[in-house]
Amino acid sequence: MKNKIITISRQFGSGGRTIGRAVAAKLGIPCYDGELIAMIAERSGFSEAHLAELDEHSVKRQPFAGVAERATQSSILQTVLWNTQEKTILDLASKGPCVIIGRCANHILQNKFDCLNVYIHADKEFRANRIVTVYGETDDSPLKRIQEKDKRRKEYYQRYTNKKWGSAEDFHISLDSGSLGIDTCTELLVSLY
Amino acid sequence: MKNKIITISRQFGSGGRTIGRAVAAKLGIPCYDGELIAMIAERSGFSEAHLAELDEHSVKRQPFAGVAERATQSSILQTVLWNTQEKTILDLASKGPCVIIGRCANHILQNKFDCLNVYIHADKEFRANRIVTVYGETDDSPLKRIQEKDKRRKEYYQRYTNKKWGSAEDFHISLDSGSLGIDTCTELLVSLY
Repeated sequence: MKNKIITISRQFGSGGRTIGRAVAAKLGIPCYDGELIAMIAERSGFSEAHLAELDEHSVKRQPFAGVAERATQSSILQTVLWNTQEKTILDLASKGPCVIIGRCANHILQNKFDCLNVYIHADKEFRANRIVTVYGETDDSPLKRIQEKDKRRKEYYQRYTNKKWGSAEDFHISLDSGSLGIDTCTELLVSLY
Repeated sequence: MKNKIITISRQFGSGGRTIGRAVAAKLGIPCYDGELIAMIAERSGFSEAHLAELDEHSVKRQPFAGVAERATQSSILQTVLWNTQEKTILDLASKGPCVIIGRCANHILQNKFDCLNVYIHADKEFRANRIVTVYGETDDSPLKRIQEKDKRRKEYYQRYTNKKWGSAEDFHISLDSGSLGIDTCTELLVSLY
């Protein structure tokens, strides 16, 4: 138990990443998210694009899992990715205080590091508006994009942690960013740290 | 949407009631819990002891529901109690800012009042120690008492709200009182209000 790590799990579009980055900036500690993928890519030899596709998707949701052989190949890749990711997150946490977004970091660091585990959620209307503003429009409706991402994150989390996604018990603090506002959530977490 | 009401849902032994009372005292607003039962009793004509027994138990868990007739009688009593409780909570909320502990107040006041809905939880070890300190020993082990109370609250909440008990999404803020501490939870809620 050393170093104080903030892990942030979040619903798609809830602003969890924005809050995590703002908290890290205010505390003057690093925040790992996209950077983490690049580090994993470097270690595993996967291409960054391939990793981004695999990332936080469960095997069943793989678009290329049409035949048994490909499904098996995908499953092996997922396991390799998970193991590399687990090691990377443990290494990052041992370097010093930081914020880690997503990737079941709360589960990976459990009983190993002093963590503040955070869950950020918001209602669908708030998230739908936010993803259009932050990520832009796509052919799919915002609600469809949210539903798909929610389903993937839920499957991914449950597969690797054996816990229910979105259960308050898994976190020290859960915040509704839609009602409380992103700035208030940021301030609360900074004051708690 | 008027008056700012704090509703507190909590796991048995998590200190939710203590936090609610402390928050209300610091804010100088009333806190309704045991007092609420007395008010309901007064309105409904039930005895206070009978109400305390019915309170937050679902029909299936009623100890006297051994035969169909008694189960039906119990179900009718539960419905009467729920309706009286709903009306009482709405009346209390309309009087002015307050803290309301338990009784699905978050659900009853939804879309009717400006609420801060809070969920307080903690791990079983913390709660087991706490209930012995606060409520004393009984013939049943602390863990058994927690399991039974958790089951009752879950059934009660799900019966009347049609939602999952313990889901972060139902609350603006969920706090782990075991890790964060009761004083920190109190301060956080006061600062949020």
